[in-house]
Amino acid sequence: MLAIMVAMGVAMIISLLGTPLLIRLLVRRQYGQFIRQDGPTSHQTKRGTPTMGGLVIIISTVIAYIAANIVGQRWPGASGLLLLFLMIGMGVIGFIDDYIKISHQRSLGLNPLGKLIGQALVGILFAALALQFKDEANRTPGSMRISFVRDTDLTLAYWGVGIGLILFILWANFLISAWSNAVNLTDGLDGLATGASMIAFGAYTIIAIFQSNQNCRALVDTAAGCYEVRDPRDLAIIGAAIVGSCFGFLWWNASPAQIFMGDTGSLALGAAFAGMSILTRTEVLAVLLGGLFVIIVFSDVIQIGVFKLTRKRVFRMAPLHHHFELKGWGEVTIVIRFWIIAALLAVLGGGLFYAEWLAQQ
Amino acid sequence: MLAIMVAMGVAMIISLLGTPLLIRLLVRRQYGQFIRQDGPTSHQTKRGTPTMGGLVIIISTVIAYIAANIVGQRWPGASGLLLLFLMIGMGVIGFIDDYIKISHQRSLGLNPLGKLIGQALVGILFAALALQFKDEANRTPGSMRISFVRDTDLTLAYWGVGIGLILFILWANFLISAWSNAVNLTDGLDGLATGASMIAFGAYTIIAIFQSNQNCRALVDTAAGCYEVRDPRDLAIIGAAIVGSCFGFLWWNASPAQIFMGDTGSLALGAAFAGMSILTRTEVLAVLLGGLFVIIVFSDVIQIGVFKLTRKRVFRMAPLHHHFELKGWGEVTIVIRFWIIAALLAVLGGGLFYAEWLAQQ
Repeated sequence: MLAIMVAMGVAMIISLLGTPLLIRLLVRRQYGQFIRQDGPTSHQTKRGTPTMGGLVIIISTVIAYIAANIVGQRWPGASGLLLLFLMIGMGVIGFIDDYIKISHQRSLGLNPLGKLIGQALVGILFAALALQFKDEANRTPGSMRISFVRDTDLTLAYWGVGIGLILFILWANFLISAWSNAVNLTDGLDGLATGASMIAFGAYTIIAIFQSNQNCRALVDTAAGCYEVRDPRDLAIIGAAIVGSCFGFLWWNASPAQIFMGDTGSLALGAAFAGMSILTRTEVLAVLLGGLFVIIVFSDVIQIGVFKLTRKRVFRMAPLHHHFELKGWGEVTIVIRFWIIAALLAVLGGGLFYAEWLAQQ
Repeated sequence: MLAIMVAMGVAMIISLLGTPLLIRLLVRRQYGQFIRQDGPTSHQTKRGTPTMGGLVIIISTVIAYIAANIVGQRWPGASGLLLLFLMIGMGVIGFIDDYIKISHQRSLGLNPLGKLIGQALVGILFAALALQFKDEANRTPGSMRISFVRDTDLTLAYWGVGIGLILFILWANFLISAWSNAVNLTDGLDGLATGASMIAFGAYTIIAIFQSNQNCRALVDTAAGCYEVRDPRDLAIIGAAIVGSCFGFLWWNASPAQIFMGDTGSLALGAAFAGMSILTRTEVLAVLLGGLFVIIVFSDVIQIGVFKLTRKRVFRMAPLHHHFELKGWGEVTIVIRFWIIAALLAVLGGGLFYAEWLAQQ
C-alpha cells in the first residue's frame, strides 16, 4: 500500500513541476499544436499551444514506478515491466507523430503506414512476451482466454496453441489500437482526456489492489473468488502512478490549456489502458471502466456509418464533445459533465467487478 | 460494501434528476440569488441564478441512507442518525437564511442573532446526544477526548465529567461553526465547494470503511491499531451518499452554474464534515482532509488581520479564489486547480491516517 501511495505522490509532484518546464522549452522552440481544420472554428484560437505534454506523463510514471519499488523494497514484476514497455513504445510512436506535425508545420504527422508498422511492432512484441515469464504458480502476465471480470472459459487456443497465439496477438493488437484511438479521439477539449484517464486508471488501481489482496497465491485457506493474476501489485503501482501523473498534468492542461498531451500522451495512455485490461484479465469489463472513451468512439463510428448509408448526420459534429459544443454548451460544461459520466461508468464497472467476487463468497 | 455503493448510486441519481426539477421550480417562482456587492464585479452577472440547491443534496443524502439500510438489511446506527440530524438541522438554518434573502430581496438573510441561536441549538443538542447511546462495548458516538487520527490521551474531562461535558459542547460547536463557515466561504465560484466537498467526504468514506474493517469490536485475534469508533459503517454510508449527491449536483452546478447550493448546502455540508470528524475521531486530521476549506478561511483571516494591523492588503481580495480571479486566472482554472489542491491534501491526510495504523502493526 505504501508503494502505491508513493507512486501516486511522486508522479504527481514530478508532473506538476515538470510540465511548466516542458511548456517553457516547447514555447521557446516554437513547438505549437496545429489544430485540425475540420474541428469547430472556435478551436482555431488554440493554435500555437504547445503539445507533446504526454512526455511528462510517461516520464513521471516511469520515475514514480522506480521510486515506488525502491521505497517498497521490491523487485519490479514482469507485468509491470511489460505494461511500461507498451506505454513507452506507443508513446514514442505518438511522439514521432507529434514531432513531424510540428517540424513540418502540418496537421498530419507520421505517414499512416509507418504508424501502423510501429504500432504493430510494439503490440506484437507486447502480446508475445505477455505469454512468457511464468511465475512459480505457472501464471503468465497475459492469457489466451478472453476475460470479463476474470478469465472466462472462452479460450483462443481452442484450435491449438499455435493458432491461439496468433489469435491472442491479433486480439491484443485490436485492443491496443482501439483504446489508443479512443483516448486520442477523446483528447479534443481542454482536460477532457486527462481527467477521463485519471478516472479510468483510478478504477484499475483499485481493482488491482483488490486482486492483490484476493490473490490465489496469497490466500492460503479461503480461495473462493480469488484472482489468478500475475503481479497485481505491480499493476496497482503503475495505475496509481498514471493517476498521479495525469493529476499533476491536469493543473496545466485544464481550461485554458497551456499544453496538450498530443499523440504522445493519448497513444501512451490508451495503450496502457489496453495493457491494463489484458494483464488484469478484465478485457471486456474495460468497456465500462473506460466507458466515456467507448461512447466517444461510437459517436464517431455511428456518425460516419449513418452518413455513408443515408447521407444524414446523427450528430452536428463527431466526436460527441464537438456535437455539444455546436449545441452551445460551454467547453468546460462539457468537460465536467463528461468527467461525471466517466466516473459513473467506472463506478458501475467497479461495482460489477465487486459483485461478481461477492457472489463467489 | 454493497450498502455503501447503493448509497452513492442512489444519491447520485436522485440529485442528478432532482436538481433540474428544483431549478425549474425556483425559476418559476423567481427565486434567484443575490450576489454580494463586495465580490468581483464580474460576479454581478450571476444575479438571478437560483440558489438553495443544498436542498437536493440534503434530501438525496437522506433517501440514499434509507435505501442503503434497506438494501443492506441493517438498522441505522446512532452515529448515522446523529450525523443526519446535524446535517439537516444546519441545512434548515441555511434554508431559512436563503429564503429570507430571496423573499426580502436583499443580500443579507437571517439576522445574526437568530442564526447564532439556531446554530447553537442544533450544535448543543448534537454534542450532548453524541455522548449518549452507549453500545454493548460501552462506546458512544462522540468522546470527550481530542482526536487526531484517533482519540488521544488529551481529555476534556480532566477537571471532571461535568466540566468535560461543557468543554466538549463548546469544542463541538466550535468545529461545527468553523467548518460550516469554511464551506460557506469556499462556495464563491461555480462548482468549487461542491467538488471540494466530494473530495473531502470521499476521503472520509474511505477512512470510515477502513475503521469499519479494522474495528476493535469486529476483530477477535489481532487488535493492534484497531479503531474504537461506534458505527463506522453508518458513517461510510452517509459519506458515500454525500459524495454521490455532490456528484449529481455538480452536473448542474459546474460552470456556468444553473443553480447554487446556497447557505442551505454550505452549512449542511460544513456541519456534516465537522460531525464526521467528531464521530470518526479525527478532529485534527480533518484540517488536512478538508485542507482547501482551511486555506480559504485562513486567507480571509490573514487578509482581515493584517489589514487591521497595517492597513495593507495581503491578497487583492479575500477569500483566496477572488484573489486569483483579480489576478486574471479564469474562473474554471481556479476551480480545477483548487480541486487538485483539495485532492492532494485529502490524499496526504489519508496517507497520514494509514501510516499511523501501519506503525502499530
